[in-house]
Parts: sequence; C-alpha cells; structure tokens
Amino acid sequence: MPDIRLLVEYDGTAFHGWQVQPDQRTVQGVLEDALGQLTGESVKLVSAGRTDAGVHAAGQVASFKTACTVPPERIGAAVNGLLPPEIAVVESGEAPDGFDARGDCTGRAYRYTLLQRRTRSPLLRARAYFVPSRLDPGLMEEAAGVLVGKHDFSSFRSSDDSRRHVVRTLKRLDISSHGELVFIDAEADSFLQNMVRIIAGTLVEAGKGRFSTGDVRAILEARDRRRAGPTLPAAGLCFMCARFD
Amino acid sequence: MPDIRLLVEYDGTAFHGWQVQPDQRTVQGVLEDALGQLTGESVKLVSAGRTDAGVHAAGQVASFKTACTVPPERIGAAVNGLLPPEIAVVESGEAPDGFDARGDCTGRAYRYTLLQRRTRSPLLRARAYFVPSRLDPGLMEEAAGVLVGKHDFSSFRSSDDSRRHVVRTLKRLDISSHGELVFIDAEADSFLQNMVRIIAGTLVEAGKGRFSTGDVRAILEARDRRRAGPTLPAAGLCFMCARFD
Repeated sequence: MPDIRLLVEYDGTAFHGWQVQPDQRTVQGVLEDALGQLTGESVKLVSAGRTDAGVHAAGQVASFKTACTVPPERIGAAVNGLLPPEIAVVESGEAPDGFDARGDCTGRAYRYTLLQRRTRSPLLRARAYFVPSRLDPGLMEEAAGVLVGKHDFSSFRSSDDSRRHVVRTLKRLDISSHGELVFIDAEADSFLQNMVRIIAGTLVEAGKGRFSTGDVRAILEARDRRRAGPTLPAAGLCFMCARFD
Repeated sequence: MPDIRLLVEYDGTAFHGWQVQPDQRTVQGVLEDALGQLTGESVKLVSAGRTDAGVHAAGQVASFKTACTVPPERIGAAVNGLLPPEIAVVESGEAPDGFDARGDCTGRAYRYTLLQRRTRSPLLRARAYFVPSRLDPGLMEEAAGVLVGKHDFSSFRSSDDSRRHVVRTLKRLDISSHGELVFIDAEADSFLQNMVRIIAGTLVEAGKGRFSTGDVRAILEARDRRRAGPTLPAAGLCFMCARFD
C-alpha cells in the first residue's frame, strides 16, 4: 500500500488539539473521518506535530497508508470537499515507502505572534497574544540567544510532561517585527510540551526588562518549570513547517 | 454636552452589519448598549461608514454626545471591558463641538483582500476571498485606472441601492500584493452600496483576462449593475480609515 503525505492547514480555535481523544473534536479525528469517507478505509494518521487545543497550523505534515485508487496528488482536493472550513489539505502526494511523518521528521518550526499596542484587537484575537506593555526587541533577542543550542529544557516544559528525554536542540529562535506584530520563530529537532509557549512567555518578560539575560541563563540551568515565564495562550501559536532531511 | 469621537475595530463575521436593525445583533447596537451601561444614558452613535453584514473594520469612526463625567480619552478603555471580544474601541477623545462622524467625513478607505493560491485557507477564511485562478496584477491595475476619478458609479452598486446621487469621486484604487495575498485599496468621498465588493469582483475578472480595460470602461459608461463583475463576499472587506479634512 502506498504511503501518502499531506500538508495540512488548520484554524485550531474550535478543536481540542490535533490528537484523537474520546468524545472531543480533534483535527486528527475530523481528518481521519473525512479520509475514511473518501477511501472507504479506516484511516490512521501520523503527524509531525501534535498541536495542543487552540494551536493553529500553516504547515502540519501527516502520513497514512492507503489502498485507494484516487491519485495521491488528487487526495487533497478530493478530501477538502469533505472537510469543515477550519481544515484544509494544501498539498498531497505519494511519499517514499514506509514514510512516517512523525518518526522521519528532523525539524519542526513554530511561530508565536505577539500584538504590541495599547488595546486588544478584535481582528487578531484568535491569532496573536496581546501585550499592552512596551517590549524591547533587543532584550528579547539577547535572551533568545541564551536558549539557542542543545540543552536540557526542563524549565520550559509543562509540569504535566513526563517524557524522560528532555534534551532538545533549539536550532533557531528569532525575533522580528512587522508593524504592531512581533514574531518569535522557533525551530528545533522536536519540542517538549508547551515549550514554545513557555519560551515566548519568558521572552516577553525579558522584553519588559523583568528577566535579564543572566536570569534567563539561570532559568535554563535550574531545570525547574517554576522559574520560567508564564505559558502564553494557544491562540498565538502556529505550527509553520516540518523538515525531513 | 461634549461630542466624543471613537476609533472602532471589529470582526464583522458574527454581526448583521454596523447599523441597528430590529432583532439583529449589530455592531452599532452592541456598542450603544455598552456605552449606555457606562454612561447611564441612551447613547445614539453616528458613524463614518455603515458596513454590511460580515464586513470588518480596522478604523471605523463613530461619534456621540454625552454628559457623563468619564474623561473622553478614558471612555475607550472603560467601554472595552463591557464589549465582546469581536469589538474594541481603539481610541477615544473629545471632538470639536457638533462633530458628526458621518456628515463631517470627507474620505473613506476600504481594503479588499484576495488570497491567490490553489487551495482555500482555513486561517484566512474570514479575512480574504480565495481565488484559485491566476490573476495578472498588471491587468488589474490597468482596469483600476479606468475607474479612478469622478464618475456615475451606477454599474457598481447593489440593485437594492436607491440613492438618487450616484456620482462619487474614487480618489485611489491601488493593487498591491504580499506573498499569496492581493490587496485592493479603494478610497473615495463615499461609496455606494456594495461598491467596493463589485469593483473587486470586476477587477478579479480583469485579472483573469475576462474583462479588457475597454470592457471596464464600457461597464462604467453603461450605468447598469448587470454589466459589472460579481459582488465578492463580505469577509474579504475591511473599512480601514475615515478622513476628516
């Protein structure tokens, strides 16, 4: 059976995250149902990222095996007609034999978006986190520089995360801005639970001058979730792309 | 009683437009209720633009008279606490005596946003109109050039619009793009009903090569709604700003 690779975009607002959960509306669940209708098979998807409730994706990658005869590059257009407006398959195609979107993924990139202005924004409320205080991008960049590299990121993961391997390689943590928006772009081999949202919360504190670069280094070294900044809301986070080297 | 001026942003998706209508949720209705709670008065708002159902605003301007003692520049922050997430007052202040956001407004600017790609976008579905066909921006610009100026815009207004004065001065009609987005920026003294959405529908046809520049000139001269392109959906339209000279 050929392996199919999908590039998926979704608005996470109304979903309990990617992963199938009993009695919850999840992106994986809705997408598996639609693919099941199309193929007549019971489809099981594997994905590069398991985004949490409310987190968006511009470039999620998912894979599955199928015996159906729809040409792989047409599966996306066909299944889009069966999906709700909040989910779309942007691209589909045949993948190399045995392709596994989770196991084969070597890099994940997320963007956290901040809105810097005096009042909240109705138009951006589901896409950006509103920060009324003044942020210094220079201070944020300095703090980000401390986190780049291979580290034990225990201070930057949810206290619910019980994974044994806590060392990750943060390849990139860039701060940029466009008008009132500030983007935090993070890329790593993989991320711990809530890692980008806690890093974003810590960089916001640094941008306000509440954490110095030395403080951020001490937080990293402490391996203690309680030392880092707050977990920022899901709405500001978007899974941008997955790399397969 | 001082005149107050408000700068208002809203996500029009869940509203039956700006203007108060019986038994409908409208932006004006919700904002007047919240201002009524704050001031203890029965507030009547006048606005620079009366946006239709589903149309957004980044820079709507509204005015009202009040005897309340809240400092004018604090009214925005105070009323934001009483408004739903879809509406915010971005700025408030005292206006010149007798200020009337509708009658004193000398220019209105709207932006229509198109998304040019092969598949629909879940993340932009409430902000942009999806056009899968290839658009030629040069052809769109040429067609736009025909419409700029003082004209009878009868061909570009809803057949429900019964206003007697149909001459408007279109000061600007610019096409620009950013990645997969194409922006149509229109500015006029005022607009007829659905005028920007019909102009956008006509420019999309021009961009596809279906209307030549000569066709667009003939459409304008025909003063006949049936000749112009379709009225594009409300979700792509945003009221950007109002000018008061």
